[in-house]
Amino acid sequence: MSQLWKKNLINITPYVAGEQPKNDNIIKLNANENPYPPSPEVQKILAGKTAGDFRKYPDANAVPLKEALAERYGLSPENVFCGNGSDDVLATAFRAFFNSDKPIFYPDITYSFYPVWCELLKIPYETKPVDENFEIDVRDFYPENGGVVIPNPNAPTSIGVGKEFIVDLLEHNRYCIVLIDEAYADFGRYSCVELVKKYDNLVVTQTFSKSRSMAGMRVGMAFAQSELISYMQAVKDSYNSYPLDQVAIETAVASVKDEKYFTETVDKIKSTRDKGVKILRDMGFKVFDSETNFLFASHPDYPAKEIFEFVRSKGVLVRYFNKPRIDNYLRITVGTDEEMQSLYGAIRELLAK
Amino acid sequence: MSQLWKKNLINITPYVAGEQPKNDNIIKLNANENPYPPSPEVQKILAGKTAGDFRKYPDANAVPLKEALAERYGLSPENVFCGNGSDDVLATAFRAFFNSDKPIFYPDITYSFYPVWCELLKIPYETKPVDENFEIDVRDFYPENGGVVIPNPNAPTSIGVGKEFIVDLLEHNRYCIVLIDEAYADFGRYSCVELVKKYDNLVVTQTFSKSRSMAGMRVGMAFAQSELISYMQAVKDSYNSYPLDQVAIETAVASVKDEKYFTETVDKIKSTRDKGVKILRDMGFKVFDSETNFLFASHPDYPAKEIFEFVRSKGVLVRYFNKPRIDNYLRITVGTDEEMQSLYGAIRELLAK
Repeated sequence: MSQLWKKNLINITPYVAGEQPKNDNIIKLNANENPYPPSPEVQKILAGKTAGDFRKYPDANAVPLKEALAERYGLSPENVFCGNGSDDVLATAFRAFFNSDKPIFYPDITYSFYPVWCELLKIPYETKPVDENFEIDVRDFYPENGGVVIPNPNAPTSIGVGKEFIVDLLEHNRYCIVLIDEAYADFGRYSCVELVKKYDNLVVTQTFSKSRSMAGMRVGMAFAQSELISYMQAVKDSYNSYPLDQVAIETAVASVKDEKYFTETVDKIKSTRDKGVKILRDMGFKVFDSETNFLFASHPDYPAKEIFEFVRSKGVLVRYFNKPRIDNYLRITVGTDEEMQSLYGAIRELLAK
Repeated sequence: MSQLWKKNLINITPYVAGEQPKNDNIIKLNANENPYPPSPEVQKILAGKTAGDFRKYPDANAVPLKEALAERYGLSPENVFCGNGSDDVLATAFRAFFNSDKPIFYPDITYSFYPVWCELLKIPYETKPVDENFEIDVRDFYPENGGVVIPNPNAPTSIGVGKEFIVDLLEHNRYCIVLIDEAYADFGRYSCVELVKKYDNLVVTQTFSKSRSMAGMRVGMAFAQSELISYMQAVKDSYNSYPLDQVAIETAVASVKDEKYFTETVDKIKSTRDKGVKILRDMGFKVFDSETNFLFASHPDYPAKEIFEFVRSKGVLVRYFNKPRIDNYLRITVGTDEEMQSLYGAIRELLAK
């Protein structure tokens, strides 16, 4: 009787976060973190920062960061939205753009936060099964809908699509918002940010957590025509006016301005990744050609769960999903060459048993 | 025809942020920022931080900060929620707790974000007019409702209430969630965090932006019994898993642990504030006894807007609200003694004309 307030509590199933090892000695290849530090320019900005500045509110619209990103991508600051990590940016986009009675469409195997936001925001949705090679068929996204979300490259499959696919998708979806989640695009063949100028219904999201080694600072962004960005700003300003703190804004700007370091780091990871695909295939794994900073792999003779547990016992943590269709696959973050050697060594030990 | 996607855009009126002067020489008494830097311990942590750590995700639940706050307030970490500024924490609480068909109640003159969240989240609400002295009548909050929000002390009125009021409010609201917004409580007579142990329907929110001089870092928190905190966590985990970045978590912990600096800074501001009340009254102002880090003042002979514009022309920015009932008042942030002297000098110049 006294707890009648319980009837007004929200009714949701919370998202369950991944394993966070307390052991510092473990090799962490489970969270798609970048094995390299951010640009030395980021360290310089951090070292020059004084806590005395903390007393003032940050720039509410992260203007210096919007300007740096606009310059980097050949757009205007009005085409850029910045948020507290890619999740904040994506959730803001879902809320701003998906207000139809018709379902939004996204692939059945994809980022697990999409259904969580749909439930939280009461957005109807319909998943489109990827094929037996985990590829997305663009024709599944032709029918009338309330919006389309495609991650490119997709996660956890690591598979990317090219310009032709995205243009086809856009040409068949002129009447809804098309959201392309490019969390991993810096490691892939194609980013569609260039299409923002042409398609007024395209929204592209990216993150500083992967290619820019700044997961710890929570910075994400979206690119779109200014009208769409203004709707995202309106949602942000109705929820939390200052999502990016001073240090996040200033260090992110430094990262964007160091193009050379960015390219070098991405290239190193792609090189380690491509070697990894061959090495795992030589061990008998099925491995997709990855356009991301992780590998998606399955072995015909060893269940994924067994490999996951064995390599963990050897001090290497990868990601195992106990989910339909992908429960025999491992998602392996691309670490340094040395970290990958430890993984390969542990797997060889298992296969030799 | 081609812009049919417009029908699915969200329909909201965005919150309009306050004036952000570009001129660094202006004395900023308009945003209730703290004039003093955060604890020197915060600077130490910042100076010792290396950007190399940024590559890893932060602790998703800000556990070190929850532990530090729990210790400070004599609670358990399970009684603490941390978010990306007080606004994030409050919006999370609104979403977690206000899901009734009955309206939530809050004062008519109060923090302007409450109606914005109600609109965004489609929460029915009813405002209860404060009296002619801007005081809240607790009896207005007795009738059946979907939840109660009381800021204590209230803003922009600067008026606080004591324990008797809060207990009375709680005793008459056993069947809904009572949310006490304590953004300014460290400057006031009473914080009800102690009542969290007794009342299972009480939620108390606070911020690092005012008394802890960390507006730039976006840290806010809530205190409640563990069941209520778990609902807030569920909302957070359904929206954005990692709202606090590494630097925010680590510097906030340093702030909480330096109790001596905290007390000294709050005392300095209270001293400057109480002198300010007398000085403004001597100049003919009506000024409320403030329990916050700002003064709410009105002059019988000079319209607030005129004073606002005059002192701005002299390089001092205060806050003027063009809103019903308070459009002849100024909200003046308590700065350093020197900053306040500049304000008083400018006002004297106007009154002498």
